[in-house]
Amino acid sequence: MKKYIFEVLITLKNGILDPQGLATQKVLKRMNYPIDNVKFGKLITFEIDAEDIKKAEDLANEITYNSLINPVLENYELKMLREIEI
Amino acid sequence: MKKYIFEVLITLKNGILDPQGLATQKVLKRMNYPIDNVKFGKLITFEIDAEDIKKAEDLANEITYNSLINPVLENYELKMLREIEI
Repeated sequence: MKKYIFEVLITLKNGILDPQGLATQKVLKRMNYPIDNVKFGKLITFEIDAEDIKKAEDLANEITYNSLINPVLENYELKMLREIEI
Repeated sequence: MKKYIFEVLITLKNGILDPQGLATQKVLKRMNYPIDNVKFGKLITFEIDAEDIKKAEDLANEITYNSLINPVLENYELKMLREIEI
């Protein structure tokens, strides 16, 4: 059995309004920063116990798609950061 | 002049309570997933116009530290994803 540490980066799909990003961008531009395209997303990390990387990744994808993101509005990128022998 | 695209990963410092992560973990455990250590953070991406990478990184760090994070509660990791000639 091993412990696999995952990181999920969640972003809004193209065309979905990001009011938090727009408001932040407006403020930073007003402060004269040469900034553009500010976008807010979510970062979630978690550990999965599994026998091998394949099973861990399948579980991590299932959890992310079914419980962590909104598949209508959001895209996600799942990264396995490291594995730990337990 | 170039455009530099940055990604900031924002996480809570050690010892800072993450109720959203705890609640999510509890639900996923109740669903019998072998999951642990669920932690929520933020992901922010933005573009900076600058003459070179050094100036872009200085600006990105300044913006992140002063305006995007709460340095008492949060850590951040800044990554330059790519540069675009403009």
